Amino acid sequence: MNLRMIRYIVGSVIQIEAAFLLLPALTALIYQESCIWVFLGVALFCLLGGHLLKGKRPENTAIFSSEGYISVALCWIMLSICGALPFYFSGYFPNPVDALFEIVSGFTTTGATILSDVEILPRSILMWRSFSHWIGGMGVLVFMLAILPMAGASSMYLMRAESPGPSVGKLVPKVRSTAKILYIIYFFMTVAEMVFLVFAGCPLFDSVNLSFATAGTGGFGVLNSSAGDYNAAIQVILTVFMILFGVNFNVYFLIYSGNTREALQCEEARTYFGIIGISTLLIAVNTFPMFANFGETILHAAFQVASIITTTGFSSTDFDLWPEFSRTILVILMFIGACAGSTGGGIKVSRIAIMVKTVAKELSFIIHPRNVRKTRFEGKPVEHEVLRSINVFLVSYLIIFVLSTLIVSLDNLDGITNFTAVASAVNNIGPGLAKAGSTQNFSIFSNLSKMVLIFDMLAGRLEIFPILILGSLCVKKRHWN
Amino acid sequence: MNLRMIRYIVGSVIQIEAAFLLLPALTALIYQESCIWVFLGVALFCLLGGHLLKGKRPENTAIFSSEGYISVALCWIMLSICGALPFYFSGYFPNPVDALFEIVSGFTTTGATILSDVEILPRSILMWRSFSHWIGGMGVLVFMLAILPMAGASSMYLMRAESPGPSVGKLVPKVRSTAKILYIIYFFMTVAEMVFLVFAGCPLFDSVNLSFATAGTGGFGVLNSSAGDYNAAIQVILTVFMILFGVNFNVYFLIYSGNTREALQCEEARTYFGIIGISTLLIAVNTFPMFANFGETILHAAFQVASIITTTGFSSTDFDLWPEFSRTILVILMFIGACAGSTGGGIKVSRIAIMVKTVAKELSFIIHPRNVRKTRFEGKPVEHEVLRSINVFLVSYLIIFVLSTLIVSLDNLDGITNFTAVASAVNNIGPGLAKAGSTQNFSIFSNLSKMVLIFDMLAGRLEIFPILILGSLCVKKRHWN
Repeated sequence: MNLRMIRYIVGSVIQIEAAFLLLPALTALIYQESCIWVFLGVALFCLLGGHLLKGKRPENTAIFSSEGYISVALCWIMLSICGALPFYFSGYFPNPVDALFEIVSGFTTTGATILSDVEILPRSILMWRSFSHWIGGMGVLVFMLAILPMAGASSMYLMRAESPGPSVGKLVPKVRSTAKILYIIYFFMTVAEMVFLVFAGCPLFDSVNLSFATAGTGGFGVLNSSAGDYNAAIQVILTVFMILFGVNFNVYFLIYSGNTREALQCEEARTYFGIIGISTLLIAVNTFPMFANFGETILHAAFQVASIITTTGFSSTDFDLWPEFSRTILVILMFIGACAGSTGGGIKVSRIAIMVKTVAKELSFIIHPRNVRKTRFEGKPVEHEVLRSINVFLVSYLIIFVLSTLIVSLDNLDGITNFTAVASAVNNIGPGLAKAGSTQNFSIFSNLSKMVLIFDMLAGRLEIFPILILGSLCVKKRHWN
Repeated sequence: MNLRMIRYIVGSVIQIEAAFLLLPALTALIYQESCIWVFLGVALFCLLGGHLLKGKRPENTAIFSSEGYISVALCWIMLSICGALPFYFSGYFPNPVDALFEIVSGFTTTGATILSDVEILPRSILMWRSFSHWIGGMGVLVFMLAILPMAGASSMYLMRAESPGPSVGKLVPKVRSTAKILYIIYFFMTVAEMVFLVFAGCPLFDSVNLSFATAGTGGFGVLNSSAGDYNAAIQVILTVFMILFGVNFNVYFLIYSGNTREALQCEEARTYFGIIGISTLLIAVNTFPMFANFGETILHAAFQVASIITTTGFSSTDFDLWPEFSRTILVILMFIGACAGSTGGGIKVSRIAIMVKTVAKELSFIIHPRNVRKTRFEGKPVEHEVLRSINVFLVSYLIIFVLSTLIVSLDNLDGITNFTAVASAVNNIGPGLAKAGSTQNFSIFSNLSKMVLIFDMLAGRLEIFPILILGSLCVKKRHWN
């Protein structure tokens, strides 16, 4: 176990966070808020703390798979603790568990809040909430890889541990340039959304925040009504960009490299668009009597479908009041999630597609025992290793889900609240249904439940393994040396 | 596809059903109920219909895996349709979908009823309901294999397709004698329960019915209060026998063959008893304030845990009123289910145990990449084929679960009702929670939902594959010739 290298990585990430904290500090300066000293103080603390932790750059920078997972898990935990400090010291989150919950919800792009009124917050605090989505969406380690030179294999392990989805695919070989390109695409898409929003009549501050939250598929808003009070044009722009940020970034990477034709054939993206289309249609038919006209119905249906499948979690209307059929579709979408390699959460479209295809293949194998063929995805046979990792992912996912729901049920709230709150946390969505619905907040839960949900959000964002491996190592301490 | 042999098997099974129908006919004779003509008429119909369908015994009796699955699926469908006839013609089930629902709920040992008042039913109808549990519990094809001579390999495929659990294990080689021994053990355990119940003060008619329902882990009772009105001694006996019938019959088979030591080492049974013990304890602590004393608390907790994990579905109290933590435990137990090779339903303890072990192994593999070892269960390495079939089972199970919940949600009942009704059907339990709770019934659902639940009960009892394979063959008709 290359402990010195792990320390070096964690220290670097905390220093990067210090830099990120300058954006809310700048916001505080512009709007002349007293929070500026909190942000600057925490930034200084991170800068120094990171420096102490880093120590000298180790001579042996090589790390392997397990160290990659552990580094990522530790980075995210430290990042969250440091990121919660401005919330706590600002005085708006007197309970430290609440401050941690809010920032983990931000970094993991969940977007669940424990606040009942976000409009009383200073703008710098709102900015830090939204910006945490943007940082966590693409991944802070990916950012570090884009700016720090590192051995190829080591950075691959880090990238694989932080990136969502069954495999990083074609992006692997040149990690540093890949990470750079990803962040460039990410940056420009975010800016494009801001421009569109401003043109549609959205105030600049709201545009910046909404764009950060959409880009990271997070869902923190700056109004108590989430996205319900914006005009139709803004809601359409948000819908389109939510969907775009849920697409596998491989597609944009291919377009960037000039392979538009290959990009258009991406099986995962096509399946993803298909699911969005069908769900929108079904919900529109089901909720039609609730709205004034066809256009409004389609807009609200599409907005909510996009918001839930990409795990953003904005709401344009209180979908907890929808008929049970539409609510059930939304719950199913919560689990499906966005594409692998996007900023969205959930199980991921590619995993679902591969699992369904595997079952279809097994059935056909029983009927035609001589017809032995591999499951194919994206035009290539799915290797046994990928199938195995998907199955292990699914089972660990279910185990975490069941145990979390059990612990949360100790609060004695109703079953739908518990089930959808955990689903919302582990899939990084934001709102659930009933008492965890889009017009509610998570302050009703006990500190124990909040800690469980914090664990779920981290496990969901890092796709379970880093957190589980760190946990099992903490149990068997002897492996640390 | 050996169509003639499939017809022969289905015809034989219907003729066996004709024989089984004589028990309710006898009951009607004893209690002088007019239903006797209905039962005798349907029995005659089955005898003749089965004879016509069978035709001459085909020369080629060899069938293979896919034909085994298809035979089992067709047998269960025909068995259910014929078994529903007495319900329909008795006049107590004017809606044919209700009659079919009730008998499928019986044969699949689910025990969910669409009746709000079972006490108005004639005793012969009650007997047919309970007896259907006993027939379905061990399996009607297993019964056929015990009495009809058949080629070894063919009967193995049939037995494997009908028996619950990942593998028939050691029971496979001598199918006919195995099937006989299983039915002998099953018969004597059922009789033992009847005797105990009568000694505890239970009326004879109730004892016979309760024993059939417990043996098949079904759950149809003869009182509207399920098991709530019986005395504590009867409830204890029911608890013990529910647990015993949820144990892998391999264990009894080993004891019968004199290998008691090996029987005691059965990993699945030990895990099963462990889960029962821990769940009972947790629920007892959680519900303690609701009961008069410690003994009563433990009794109700153990009764409900045994009833749900074995998927019997009796209730001694309205557990829908319990705190959410206890309700959540029961919902989790709904999914775990009993041991493989028992009469119980659910995912099965062995599948769950193997899945958990696989995840643990994968985690340890990431930490120690050189430590390559196979997952072990029951002291032996779990073969790749078994793991694959478990994974495919889990995924198909989830797909069926999600789609069923979606269709049932069209009735616009609440989410907990839909979710637990489908869970109850696909795991063959009986009661769910909320509007599908233990004091409620399934008559609130539309015919469409009832058909979906009928499908789920059959898919759950036959462990999904037979029904799915029959379905996919119906789609591609050309394979039939």
